[in-house]
Amino acid sequence: MDIVIIGSGNVAAVLGRKFKAAGHAILQVYSRNASAASELAYEWDTESTNYKSLINKKADVYIIAVADSAIDDVAGDLKLPGKVVAHTAASVPREVLRSITEHFGVFYPLQSLRKETHHLPEVPIFFDGSDDFTKRKLESLAHSIAEEQVAEAGHEDRLKLHVAAVLVSNFTNHLYTLAEEYCKKEGLDFRQLLPLIQETALRIKDISPQKAQTGPAIRHDNETIGKHLELLNDYPALKRIYLLLTESIQQAE
Amino acid sequence: MDIVIIGSGNVAAVLGRKFKAAGHAILQVYSRNASAASELAYEWDTESTNYKSLINKKADVYIIAVADSAIDDVAGDLKLPGKVVAHTAASVPREVLRSITEHFGVFYPLQSLRKETHHLPEVPIFFDGSDDFTKRKLESLAHSIAEEQVAEAGHEDRLKLHVAAVLVSNFTNHLYTLAEEYCKKEGLDFRQLLPLIQETALRIKDISPQKAQTGPAIRHDNETIGKHLELLNDYPALKRIYLLLTESIQQAE
Repeated sequence: MDIVIIGSGNVAAVLGRKFKAAGHAILQVYSRNASAASELAYEWDTESTNYKSLINKKADVYIIAVADSAIDDVAGDLKLPGKVVAHTAASVPREVLRSITEHFGVFYPLQSLRKETHHLPEVPIFFDGSDDFTKRKLESLAHSIAEEQVAEAGHEDRLKLHVAAVLVSNFTNHLYTLAEEYCKKEGLDFRQLLPLIQETALRIKDISPQKAQTGPAIRHDNETIGKHLELLNDYPALKRIYLLLTESIQQAE
Repeated sequence: MDIVIIGSGNVAAVLGRKFKAAGHAILQVYSRNASAASELAYEWDTESTNYKSLINKKADVYIIAVADSAIDDVAGDLKLPGKVVAHTAASVPREVLRSITEHFGVFYPLQSLRKETHHLPEVPIFFDGSDDFTKRKLESLAHSIAEEQVAEAGHEDRLKLHVAAVLVSNFTNHLYTLAEEYCKKEGLDFRQLLPLIQETALRIKDISPQKAQTGPAIRHDNETIGKHLELLNDYPALKRIYLLLTESIQQAE
């Protein structure tokens, strides 16, 4: 397909790379941030344009990959009748694009995307569309970059997927951060925990996390839990998290 | 080295495989659980023996890989003067082995080990010993299976490492469990979250978790946080965790 990418941040960059790798043509990178846009355009051997200039009207699909709060602004300036236009935000209804075209939708990548990483991660795609034409177009684009990891998801389901994503990504990353701080203050090497972190994440490909649960909480090993709480006396915030998650593990059995 | 493994559970199995892969000889698997012990002995082409029989006295190192609560029992029955004997528990002092030999220590694998996984994960080793001879012996054994991921760690440091391990492994796995339950109840496919989970764990090899933090909490995106809390109204325990971790992320900045 011929694609125009609107935006030049992390989502724009990684989706664009995925599109290129799948053989699509990126006709233009259209972005407020001229230098970021021209970097991506250089990488993809295409042109970049700022919001003051004309958008290329020859593409099949326009992907709006900008911050949630900027989608409204961007949408207000665009008229692309007959074109398929989709934003990439989990939490924004597709209707915010209604003024641009009759074929509006969503193309939500369920992944944490960063332009500076050089590997292209697997990116499951959840799509939504105002009509069948839009849905089929976005679905086919999704399959081209995500193979079988594609599903239709309406606004409510996307919100729920986002809640789950916050739990398994934002919150787990915060636990890594707390552990790193704790290690630094206690003179321990956080990097020695990386194999454990990776094994914990990889294992649930094979067994459900419920079956994979180990540790003092699930064993009701109150002696060890007591020792840990004592060590956390100087870390009141961390201690509260330790207590709440220990309690939650014991209730989940 | 010539090694006797005492125990036949997850830690015994995976450490034994690591020892074999590094070219050591396992002279005997000595365990209360006759069938588990004979399975491991068959895998390693060696002999297995239950606690009523004689332990092989010809090894250089004896690794006691049994449940924390069983170490005391096992230690009471063994006399191995002149031999190096180490247990594998994070939270148990080395002195519990004092009655067995003058060369007692700890060989703590900082990894979540399961005998049914077929790949051999990286396993950082923290060792401790009653004297220099014991320390050098255990350190050299550790380097043979863990290369550079080896450090000496006394009782207090091992306890602290265990606290950090609980945070990054037991607690993150519990968040995976909560997300899986939530997805099931809401009719979503938890497996679509696996690429995100793995990317989150892999990324911190390259950037510190503090820098990798994303999501509505760190963005102070109260609109999204409000929508998520509303979706969690039927999940009071999960909602408390969502609130506490969101608050903790915002305080950590």
